[in-house]
Amino acid sequence: MSAVPQVDIREVGPRDGLQIEEPIPTAAKLEFIDALVATGVRRIEVTSFVSPRAIPSLADAEAVAAELGRWPGVEFSALVAGMGGVSRALTAGVRRLEYVVSASDGHSRANVGRSMEESIALIAPIAERVHEVGGHLEVIVAIAFDCPFDGPTPPERVADIARRAMDSGADALAVADTIGTATPGRTTDVLTRVIDATGVKPGLHLHNTRGQGLANAWAAYSLGIRQFDASVGGLGGCPFAPGASGNIATEELAYMFEDSGITTGIDIGRALDAARLVSDRLGKRLTSNLLAAGGVPVPSGSSATSDAT
Amino acid sequence: MSAVPQVDIREVGPRDGLQIEEPIPTAAKLEFIDALVATGVRRIEVTSFVSPRAIPSLADAEAVAAELGRWPGVEFSALVAGMGGVSRALTAGVRRLEYVVSASDGHSRANVGRSMEESIALIAPIAERVHEVGGHLEVIVAIAFDCPFDGPTPPERVADIARRAMDSGADALAVADTIGTATPGRTTDVLTRVIDATGVKPGLHLHNTRGQGLANAWAAYSLGIRQFDASVGGLGGCPFAPGASGNIATEELAYMFEDSGITTGIDIGRALDAARLVSDRLGKRLTSNLLAAGGVPVPSGSSATSDAT
Repeated sequence: MSAVPQVDIREVGPRDGLQIEEPIPTAAKLEFIDALVATGVRRIEVTSFVSPRAIPSLADAEAVAAELGRWPGVEFSALVAGMGGVSRALTAGVRRLEYVVSASDGHSRANVGRSMEESIALIAPIAERVHEVGGHLEVIVAIAFDCPFDGPTPPERVADIARRAMDSGADALAVADTIGTATPGRTTDVLTRVIDATGVKPGLHLHNTRGQGLANAWAAYSLGIRQFDASVGGLGGCPFAPGASGNIATEELAYMFEDSGITTGIDIGRALDAARLVSDRLGKRLTSNLLAAGGVPVPSGSSATSDAT
Repeated sequence: MSAVPQVDIREVGPRDGLQIEEPIPTAAKLEFIDALVATGVRRIEVTSFVSPRAIPSLADAEAVAAELGRWPGVEFSALVAGMGGVSRALTAGVRRLEYVVSASDGHSRANVGRSMEESIALIAPIAERVHEVGGHLEVIVAIAFDCPFDGPTPPERVADIARRAMDSGADALAVADTIGTATPGRTTDVLTRVIDATGVKPGLHLHNTRGQGLANAWAAYSLGIRQFDASVGGLGGCPFAPGASGNIATEELAYMFEDSGITTGIDIGRALDAARLVSDRLGKRLTSNLLAAGGVPVPSGSSATSDAT
């Protein structure tokens, strides 16, 4: 319809951003989700259905899911790590699921207590179960660059898991730089292999732990990738590195694209508002540089704040 | 000689990084410079010869310059803003100068009390003076994207100033995103125009104020740009935005390139050491994400620190 290029940003703050934080009340999460919806984002990964002992801050997944009818225009999804989570999510009415498979045994065992192959073998039954109720399953290949336990992930392994995921019934794919070590060269390599192996352009889930996130996103855009995960303020972090950055920041990603002439649908000023809201609720300074700078120049977007002195 | 692609990083921490900070003793600067030399970097912008009232933290430019013979393999340069600074720098024995021209009247008047055209008119006499003693003059076109006073900078103006600088005897060019508002799309546009107008591939001076710095550097690399300014730890900042990031961080830039298979000559572990040193001396937390994360994965460089748990 339009000649203006566009990308699709999925907000993952309520899930990936909050998962390592101290729990906040469900009402505060709903207020956060409401602020996110106001940014114009149309896809939000809203929680995960995983063990409440492992991730206490997302123990209220059912309570959050029960309220999602408030925002009818938004596509909500939830992360799952196994069949138990799938059942919970479907029972709670969530129909778009992200199932994570780690591309290393070390991370898979640490994260879900299963080998990588055992996790891959679950894709087909999960897809079947999700499709029975008309749902949509995205498989996220995590640890797609480096594993904190096993070292570098062979890129051909990522492509192989992606191919097997599609063969097992996945509806969509994403590639995740779970610990934030990817760089543009390796991002290009891994994504090219995944596209070649599957014919699918995966989404990309990036962390900014070593400052590389936006450069990776730009390199991926140059390859034709159009779906990106992000969280306002760069919410989240790494449990192993205090003060480390979390996901790439929604407002920085949106500014990169919008100012480069690529539509995101995100209102940057409202993304900053949502970042400030969750920063206040958590009592924690977020790591987004754009948030610290206070805004973007006026000409780049009508709703952006000015830093003119 | 080699098929391995490479880039050339100029460390600007002692100049751009320190200029807005409280003054530190000359001895501490020399210790910092020594730590920078140990990173393997071969070009350092070491100070500026400007008004000590305007920039008190660089008032010791002559004292710093007098000690540079300690490090014979390194190419030191200094920034100047007018003929008085040129005379001081040459008298102090510095032979590589960067002369800054703002691409807006508002910034030019605020920064040096001259119009943009008056600053451009000084290029020819400065080049003549520098060349009389066998020196080298780089002209940096500052405010190449947006001006905090005048709004967006027309990209054709940047190209025009670059062309006039080369016509006036400049030996090299750089383009500076002084306030950190550039994005990959506009970086590509401005650099393409400068290259088309001059036949010269300029260096690129980036700030990470809105998180875009490395994405811009990657976009510029894709255009054939091979010279980049950076400062360890992302030292520096914006006087108008407390807590805002400064220059792109040397260690993040080096990691981006090295891990992508592009040689920088920078030892990332030693760059982190230099960042920690200056952070201690300033009593200030720096904004580099890689510094907060504590290092890069082992496989990316033999001297890099590990974050394996």
